[in-house]
Amino acid sequence: MNEFELIAKLVPNLHKNSAIIQGPGDDCATIDLGIPGKLLLFKTDAVVEGVHFMPDTDPVKIGRKALGRALSDIAAMAGDPTACLVTIGLPKHFDPEFVFAVYRGINSIAQEFNVPVAGGETTTSPKEIFISISLVGTIPRDRQISRAGAKRGDAIFVTGELGGSISGKHLDFTPRLGEARWLAEHFTIHAMIDLSDGLAGDLRHILHASKAGAEILSSAIPISRAAKQQAGGESSAKPPLLAALTDGEDFELLFCLSPHDAVPVLDGWKKNFPDIKIKCIGKITREPGLRIRDKEGIREFGLHGYTHFAKS
Amino acid sequence: MNEFELIAKLVPNLHKNSAIIQGPGDDCATIDLGIPGKLLLFKTDAVVEGVHFMPDTDPVKIGRKALGRALSDIAAMAGDPTACLVTIGLPKHFDPEFVFAVYRGINSIAQEFNVPVAGGETTTSPKEIFISISLVGTIPRDRQISRAGAKRGDAIFVTGELGGSISGKHLDFTPRLGEARWLAEHFTIHAMIDLSDGLAGDLRHILHASKAGAEILSSAIPISRAAKQQAGGESSAKPPLLAALTDGEDFELLFCLSPHDAVPVLDGWKKNFPDIKIKCIGKITREPGLRIRDKEGIREFGLHGYTHFAKS
Repeated sequence: MNEFELIAKLVPNLHKNSAIIQGPGDDCATIDLGIPGKLLLFKTDAVVEGVHFMPDTDPVKIGRKALGRALSDIAAMAGDPTACLVTIGLPKHFDPEFVFAVYRGINSIAQEFNVPVAGGETTTSPKEIFISISLVGTIPRDRQISRAGAKRGDAIFVTGELGGSISGKHLDFTPRLGEARWLAEHFTIHAMIDLSDGLAGDLRHILHASKAGAEILSSAIPISRAAKQQAGGESSAKPPLLAALTDGEDFELLFCLSPHDAVPVLDGWKKNFPDIKIKCIGKITREPGLRIRDKEGIREFGLHGYTHFAKS
Repeated sequence: MNEFELIAKLVPNLHKNSAIIQGPGDDCATIDLGIPGKLLLFKTDAVVEGVHFMPDTDPVKIGRKALGRALSDIAAMAGDPTACLVTIGLPKHFDPEFVFAVYRGINSIAQEFNVPVAGGETTTSPKEIFISISLVGTIPRDRQISRAGAKRGDAIFVTGELGGSISGKHLDFTPRLGEARWLAEHFTIHAMIDLSDGLAGDLRHILHASKAGAEILSSAIPISRAAKQQAGGESSAKPPLLAALTDGEDFELLFCLSPHDAVPVLDGWKKNFPDIKIKCIGKITREPGLRIRDKEGIREFGLHGYTHFAKS
């Protein structure tokens, strides 16, 4: 049983009540606490030694990544982060310098986005270090963006360049908080997500929630230099396009909006964020599934990569 | 360096802003989100395999404990829990039945206190299972109870019976949410904490925050049957009084209020919560330190137990 199958079995039995506007299944939970004009965003995210960082990873970058990941989920809702808590699990005989450095990383990104560290907990974790971040934020009541609103014909956009984040970006990304808020303030975003599972995986989350399909133009997918370099270095490495489609932890934005907004969004973005790339990579279709079009035609891109040629 | 020394070094450098009413150093963080008449409570707490539960612990009880611990911290602020998130770290080849049982435990206590499970995250944790709970709640703006308000002459109360929780209660306690709210609605609570580090340790947290001392009457400390049984069973076990003073995870309430309220609180409590014991165990003093009075006089009770006889 994988993570997604497990969650699908757990979610129907969770205790619910009317305070929950958006429960499990999106980047953040959304809660009505009676804040005038606003809803609460609530998010938790953990990084674990040996999975999200290695014993020799620079601890400043571990801290930065831990909070950055959670901030990226607030960005996916075009939200405003309010405060975070840090839970850190440490072996009994921990190295204080390691912990101070982790917190320097947390504080640097906390300061950058003005997210106070309101507290947390230090606990014993005998075998591996973990850092779990809790984050609250807000969104305007009339601007709830979920994964579920993509419509047939919508243009699909992605920011930045994708793939190969393991060679550095997964520790050193910038959550797209300001960019997402700008998008939501100027356009009607039908669906948005941050890229943590890889472009294909996260687009599939949008398609599943929106009960739709998508057609992507292979040549439009922005491939990072890291993905190209990795492919050049080792014969066993993923081809760059596959890396851009399936590598995780890009922490860029993937969003869908009306095709009428496609040109204005590109123009406005380039004026406001000239240093961050943005690409229209395809469109939402009624036919389910994820298809990729290249010179040879359209191919279905399934959970295990390309599955078969489809009619072009 | 122990946990408390570590936290003392970390806290001054954390990023802050004006949304934070109460930052690190109390049972929950308190945040001003503009909710009319209310403040947000924000808490995180983790349980780790091998520390807070064993590989053979009933997973339903692990789930119950994980959320119960965080709810007990909301009780310490006399707050109302709103919603929780669950982060669970699992080995790659996890047993789905174990996870379902953990969630049955979480759901049972979530239902009991009407705290919706708004989502969470499943992550890989190769070597040990951990469950990190995030919790938001609210308190009335005019009813902030911290650890810092104990005043000289205050009566010190404790609920329940203490010590020996390792033989079962640490997995099977009831957070005192309704009781704490009743206390706060009917009396002016000067300081309150939930007992997780043990009576002496948690009282010391109040004394430290309130810049005060305390004198406790040895014969008034409510000792649990479990603490007595453990002492009877093994010659190496703690004497029952020492267990009641220093064993952790009782998850009872410890609070201080004006001596004028002492009799009304006892009378009201017995009417409203006849099944839960409450005891006045001593008083807050101007002289710092924690002293315990018994037939033989007054003894200082330091971090390592009784340190010396003081003048009686």
